[in-house]
Amino acid sequence: MFNSILMEVAGLPIFGAALGAGVVALGAGLGIGKIGSSAMEAIARQPEAGSKIQTAMIIAAALIEGVSLFGVLICLIIATA
Amino acid sequence: MFNSILMEVAGLPIFGAALGAGVVALGAGLGIGKIGSSAMEAIARQPEAGSKIQTAMIIAAALIEGVSLFGVLICLIIATA
Amino acid sequence: MFNSILMEVAGLPIFGAALGAGVVALGAGLGIGKIGSSAMEAIARQPEAGSKIQTAMIIAAALIEGVSLFGVLICLIIATA
Repeated sequence: MFNSILMEVAGLPIFGAALGAGVVALGAGLGIGKIGSSAMEAIARQPEAGSKIQTAMIIAAALIEGVSLFGVLICLIIATA
Repeated sequence: MFNSILMEVAGLPIFGAALGAGVVALGAGLGIGKIGSSAMEAIARQPEAGSKIQTAMIIAAALIEGVSLFGVLICLIIATA
Repeated sequence: MFNSILMEVAGLPIFGAALGAGVVALGAGLGIGKIGSSAMEAIARQPEAGSKIQTAMIIAAALIEGVSLFGVLICLIIATA
């Protein structure tokens, strides 16, 4: 005898979407935080290179921002679909 | 024999929304905290570069703030939908 | 054969709201704690830059405070809804 049970948990996708949005923001926070932290120390060490460091910081942070906004958007689509 | 069980756990999406909002704020706190912490030390090391450091700090922190506010907004949408 | 089970875990949303509010406060505490800690050490190292450091400290802490207040507000809405 072989029993196959398909168990569908109704709220699970939305649960995952909300938790996923949180984990996305956790990653973005840790990543951009680390970039920003190093940028502060770099500007303090070489104030005359401040504008160069700031430009590089924004580029690196924007890359994390891009993936993160896409990630939370996917979570929003899953939650509302 | 094939059994399909739909198990609906009533509060699961809302549970996820609340937990997700918490994880979003955890990420924002850790990230902006790290940036702010380094900014303090950077200004102390080079007080004359204080305005440059503060500008870069606000830019980096605002990027985290952006994703985080979007993240908690998604959690709010999920919770009230 | 199709079985539909509605399993209602009565306190699940409120459990999530309370846990979420806790995680929000954990993030805010760690983040603002890190900023405040560094500000103390920074002012001790450069007392004459104390006002600059304090301004930057308040800005960075206020950004965390913003997300956190929004996060605990969502948890409050979930808990009382």
